[in-house]
Amino acid sequence: MVSLENIYHVCEETVPLYFAMILGYLSIKLWHLFTPEQCAGINKFVSKFSIPLLSFQIISTNNPYQMNTKLVISDALQKALAFFGFLIVTKVCCEKSMDWLITGISVSTLPNTLIVGIPLLRGMYGDEAVRLITQIVVLQSLVWYIILLIFFEYRDLKLISSEVATATQVTQVTDKERNSNSDISGELESGARQTREENPEEKVANKTAPKTTLSFMLNVGKKIAVNPNTYASLAGLVWSLISYRWGIKQPIIVNNSLRILSDGGLGMAMFSIGLFTASQSKIIACGARTAVLSLVLRFILGPSIMAISSYVVGMRGLLLKIAIVQAALPQGIVPFVFAKEYGVHPDILSTGIIVGMIAAVPIALAYYFLIGII
Amino acid sequence: MVSLENIYHVCEETVPLYFAMILGYLSIKLWHLFTPEQCAGINKFVSKFSIPLLSFQIISTNNPYQMNTKLVISDALQKALAFFGFLIVTKVCCEKSMDWLITGISVSTLPNTLIVGIPLLRGMYGDEAVRLITQIVVLQSLVWYIILLIFFEYRDLKLISSEVATATQVTQVTDKERNSNSDISGELESGARQTREENPEEKVANKTAPKTTLSFMLNVGKKIAVNPNTYASLAGLVWSLISYRWGIKQPIIVNNSLRILSDGGLGMAMFSIGLFTASQSKIIACGARTAVLSLVLRFILGPSIMAISSYVVGMRGLLLKIAIVQAALPQGIVPFVFAKEYGVHPDILSTGIIVGMIAAVPIALAYYFLIGII
Repeated sequence: MVSLENIYHVCEETVPLYFAMILGYLSIKLWHLFTPEQCAGINKFVSKFSIPLLSFQIISTNNPYQMNTKLVISDALQKALAFFGFLIVTKVCCEKSMDWLITGISVSTLPNTLIVGIPLLRGMYGDEAVRLITQIVVLQSLVWYIILLIFFEYRDLKLISSEVATATQVTQVTDKERNSNSDISGELESGARQTREENPEEKVANKTAPKTTLSFMLNVGKKIAVNPNTYASLAGLVWSLISYRWGIKQPIIVNNSLRILSDGGLGMAMFSIGLFTASQSKIIACGARTAVLSLVLRFILGPSIMAISSYVVGMRGLLLKIAIVQAALPQGIVPFVFAKEYGVHPDILSTGIIVGMIAAVPIALAYYFLIGII
Repeated sequence: MVSLENIYHVCEETVPLYFAMILGYLSIKLWHLFTPEQCAGINKFVSKFSIPLLSFQIISTNNPYQMNTKLVISDALQKALAFFGFLIVTKVCCEKSMDWLITGISVSTLPNTLIVGIPLLRGMYGDEAVRLITQIVVLQSLVWYIILLIFFEYRDLKLISSEVATATQVTQVTDKERNSNSDISGELESGARQTREENPEEKVANKTAPKTTLSFMLNVGKKIAVNPNTYASLAGLVWSLISYRWGIKQPIIVNNSLRILSDGGLGMAMFSIGLFTASQSKIIACGARTAVLSLVLRFILGPSIMAISSYVVGMRGLLLKIAIVQAALPQGIVPFVFAKEYGVHPDILSTGIIVGMIAAVPIALAYYFLIGII
């Protein structure tokens, strides 16, 4: 059973997060302290320094030789189930099936583990839970986000190659940078959709295969190369592999240098989410129906699939509880950043973040209670 | 004697500060990551949130019932000696004596104790030194900075009232806000100086006394009321008075809420100094001669007066060492912020900050060695 003391521990860990978020929110709405451009500066600091350093800090202290195999498998199984489920549903129901496939997976399977998850689960189940959710963070940063990026790039490629097949201007288009790609995909969206109906996509892809595959791989590579969070996560993994293999510790001087910026990462990230919330003209940007749907995906479908996956691979007891609660965390930030960059339903993901943040603690506590009773 | 191990401890504490500062510097000079407006956003976050919360954190953990009397007296004595010294020198030598008096005191007696001082002295002399320098931080935030503010407001008042005496437009001017005051003082500076020669200042001040004294007190009050750092310092003092009197501790939930933003304060502040350094068109803005003079004041005169004051009040041993080394820290940030706001030699103070930061560790180590030998 969950006691009042348990709930107080959860509050000790989560109230500070909301304190930082509310300060961020009030500094715009009440105190009019920052211009949009100044907010952009703070957000950039968070995304280029705070979060990458925090990721490094977390991932580098995870022992990669003692990953929980069941957790890793059930996490992968959840993603696979969601992928095939959404693949079928979106093929049948949606016009832009690829877009809805990506959004469905993002919303249902990629929660905010790094910023919200670690403190929340520490409050609920203590340090053992932190050890486990850290493993989820590692997988998310180094596997799932990269696969998600590949999905987005693949979607862009399909849009471009459909158009290319009509206009036969392969070389001019594929060499262009991401930004111009998205302009093109915006401009040509209606045309491309028409084309796709005439020429089945697979045929078009095959036709331009040698060039587009290269450009596709280059684009994915470029994206990874300019993303400081991927760098930081990878560096964290490499360091953890070395450090736990040969028992080498970071010199205090290095550790202090990283911590001086990563220590503030959590607060800065929440502050920046507060700024983001305050700067939205609408809290529910995607309309009420879609918002409800996305919340059902995030807080019911996602944890349900995780519960099934985890039970199937034989997880029981505390491990099972942690696996389910972590799947019921609010929407992760990185999928939103990608969605905005590629122009694929950013409104749904921003709603998921904002409403999810507000509802995060009650929902997490509801799961905590329910699971506690069972 | 100072061993290599001692020096390594100093590096453990100071290299991280420079790491954050260099990242800030490179993010402008090398990576062109932030626009000036975005930098302003980060600086504002630092000055409105990071630093005040850090001040609160530090001051609230200082036991105000166990202040070191000798340290408090010698600190006050150093300021008094500097005040009377500069009063005489500037009256004799300088045209704008009040400006040079303020700058002289700022440069020679107000070092950066909060951000640079605490880590550096922890590296040198351990936690006992932190306990002592924290007391200096308390005095600086709650006594010296407020007195400095009064000096600046008094200077403004003198400028205005000289002008007023000529134009006899008392009411129109004194009711105006700070911003318009500084515009006026800028515009009327040459006129005011002339006027001052004709009518001795004291006479002018007496003439408009009732009105200007009120406006003066109002201005000082307003300044204090809008300064989040003064609030935070005062709150920290009040809390420490309560907490150490009745043995009450902050609830973890409150402590965590403050720490989530103050933990990053040190790194953010150094990052922001890096941004500031990179955004200056000239490192030595005030010219080489003035720069050398200000460095002599900061690193030789200031510590010398402190050494005399401390010795006179009977400080010996470790306490004396700590008192001298803390007086040889780089230029504090707050006096620069005031100097910029009131237009009184901001170039000298910015040079002091930048060159001081670069030279801080070698100079501190030099003092550390010298004092170690003696």
